[in-house]
Amino acid sequence: MLGRVLNTHQQWLCRQFADAGYVVQRQVAVADSASAIQDAVRDALGRADLIVSTGGLGPTSDDLTRDAIAELLGRPLREDPAVLATLESWYAARRRTAPPAVRVQALVPEGARVLPNAHGTAPGLLLEFSPNPFRPAGPAAWLVMLPGPPRELRPMFTEQVLPWIRQTFPLPVPFVCRTLRSTGVPESVMQAHIADPLADLVRQGLEVGYCARPGEVDVRLASRRADAEALVGAAEAVVRREVGRHVYGGEAETLEAVVVRLLTGRGQTLAVAESCTGGHLASRITNVPGASVIFLGGFITYANTLKQNLVGVRPETLATHGAVSEPTAREMAEGARARTGADFALAVTGIAGPTGGTPEKPVGTAFLALASPAGTEVKRLLNAFDRETFKHMTSQQALELLRQKLLR
Amino acid sequence: MLGRVLNTHQQWLCRQFADAGYVVQRQVAVADSASAIQDAVRDALGRADLIVSTGGLGPTSDDLTRDAIAELLGRPLREDPAVLATLESWYAARRRTAPPAVRVQALVPEGARVLPNAHGTAPGLLLEFSPNPFRPAGPAAWLVMLPGPPRELRPMFTEQVLPWIRQTFPLPVPFVCRTLRSTGVPESVMQAHIADPLADLVRQGLEVGYCARPGEVDVRLASRRADAEALVGAAEAVVRREVGRHVYGGEAETLEAVVVRLLTGRGQTLAVAESCTGGHLASRITNVPGASVIFLGGFITYANTLKQNLVGVRPETLATHGAVSEPTAREMAEGARARTGADFALAVTGIAGPTGGTPEKPVGTAFLALASPAGTEVKRLLNAFDRETFKHMTSQQALELLRQKLLR
Repeated sequence: MLGRVLNTHQQWLCRQFADAGYVVQRQVAVADSASAIQDAVRDALGRADLIVSTGGLGPTSDDLTRDAIAELLGRPLREDPAVLATLESWYAARRRTAPPAVRVQALVPEGARVLPNAHGTAPGLLLEFSPNPFRPAGPAAWLVMLPGPPRELRPMFTEQVLPWIRQTFPLPVPFVCRTLRSTGVPESVMQAHIADPLADLVRQGLEVGYCARPGEVDVRLASRRADAEALVGAAEAVVRREVGRHVYGGEAETLEAVVVRLLTGRGQTLAVAESCTGGHLASRITNVPGASVIFLGGFITYANTLKQNLVGVRPETLATHGAVSEPTAREMAEGARARTGADFALAVTGIAGPTGGTPEKPVGTAFLALASPAGTEVKRLLNAFDRETFKHMTSQQALELLRQKLLR
Repeated sequence: MLGRVLNTHQQWLCRQFADAGYVVQRQVAVADSASAIQDAVRDALGRADLIVSTGGLGPTSDDLTRDAIAELLGRPLREDPAVLATLESWYAARRRTAPPAVRVQALVPEGARVLPNAHGTAPGLLLEFSPNPFRPAGPAAWLVMLPGPPRELRPMFTEQVLPWIRQTFPLPVPFVCRTLRSTGVPESVMQAHIADPLADLVRQGLEVGYCARPGEVDVRLASRRADAEALVGAAEAVVRREVGRHVYGGEAETLEAVVVRLLTGRGQTLAVAESCTGGHLASRITNVPGASVIFLGGFITYANTLKQNLVGVRPETLATHGAVSEPTAREMAEGARARTGADFALAVTGIAGPTGGTPEKPVGTAFLALASPAGTEVKRLLNAFDRETFKHMTSQQALELLRQKLLR
């Protein structure tokens, strides 16, 4: 409510539910006050069969959710010895002793099921209301209380909550949902390519959704018909026929993971030389578990002296063409490949902004180079975005340049 | 509700309100259905004096908000000739004729004030309810309907809505708010350090809030008393006295921006040699506009061959101590410093996981080294987190190691 935190939980949880075939009716955020939390939970129990709350289970004074809900629902809190032991061993594993305040995280409302937290200290809690005190004539209701940190919430939801939901609320109809992830095609162009070819399947009960992120568009194909599997399969074939070159993977796969997988399959290695992306390209690659099999490393040649000294860009090249130029990108890639012994080397040089642009090379200009056993190719881009989006878009196009090369 | 869009409006609007001294009580998102929208507005009018709605004012079939609210409140829609003329000239300026569907954007509920949209076609709308039909005994209420696209909503709010709010709801008391950002202290430890020393000021009307992100805790100090400025100032002094070493900046500043600022002020330069963080440390530094003044670049020495060839780690060091060790970190930092000519070099080597751990060096183990004109210091860490959080926490501690050095 203070605008200090972006609510990524809403998007992430809604997506998990939607992709599993469940409809989310409402999302509410309230201030850190016991009465506001109680009011929101009371209201939600009056509307829904399943409520998910996030946050407020930690050890500090503004973590009020556990107490507020226990009080609202008349479920006294009891210290759970198993939870306390887990808490203490979590601290012991990090060579710290548990401060007294963290013990509140071992308090469990009467009748609650404990959801162990593999990535933090506050366990999740699952409460059943049968009857539902705020909808006495209605069916039983459930409240799932999840910890706030995303790296704790997400695995807990995926590994523990979602399987329980599927069992407790089985879908009355088949639900098939498949997402194809693409790069290099804007959302409106994607829609112009596939909307007409999919129209027949839509009349038969296919749902088509688009989700655009910087440099990427997801196409979501879903159906709740008896023949959902066949409908979604036919739709996927249409999308792959129309724009397949740009489809890099399915639901959970990132572009960098696809590149790591392709190189791993070929037993080949990669190095980078980054100027304007400043390490972001390498960081995306090294986010992929197992990247060390194919990624040797490389150079961040932010200063021109390092372009010369670390990867051997010739002083004449910099003097004649400038640091942001095709020849510099080419020499960076070839130098990085030679000095690391990698099969492929990607180089990036450009103007991230907000300053540094010229009429011929405005802010957002970038050159990508890919050096490979077959030679070097260079590409000029214009990514006129804010600094961080520029870095992301430029690294995206570098990864895609390599992916296209590996597919040829 | 499908999880395809991140709700950035909530954070942005809440922040505008909070920083202006207004308290947001509740935020609600509902599906694109007239009944869900009406239900949400009815409920909000029963609770609040001012309601802001976003989106649903455009010309497409899922833009239901204007109609739904007019119907709920019994305010018939009338085509506003001035709005229609603005619409038509908007299209004319772009050498297009207004398609018939866009005319719905000229429909204005009876009694509404029109908020011109300088960046799009749908105007905002401001409705007063006196009396408030859903809280007849309460004060008058207002509903502000804003268009959904951020580049339309934000200037409309800042330029038209906020001045109107300040006039319509003048703050009865002064409001002072200050945020201190810290690193290296977990939220519970932060609270243990400052809660007691601040208790007196809290009794006098100080509000204290905490916001934790991985590796960081914000402390927000606010007050609405006559002596708010003095109270918040006294509170800041207490926080700085108790944990000042860990406070790196104010509201909007990141740790990497502080490091760039400190180095810029001293006219000194930085290079990196990253293994386990794989470019993330450099990427954070290069996110800061102006980083090129102090950041020369560096090495990503993911493979051991590159630790030897690029920064000169000795083969005996790797053979005797391993890649994840104090001597390797030290030689990486010293090699990076020597080969780039930077004043400072930060090196990181560790085990990001999920595999690669041993009993002596479990997943999450990392060594940081800082080479400087005064010599080299090395620090051992244990960041037992998922891969991306590990990279973030480790780069955070590297930046903080340098910041502490620069403060000495």
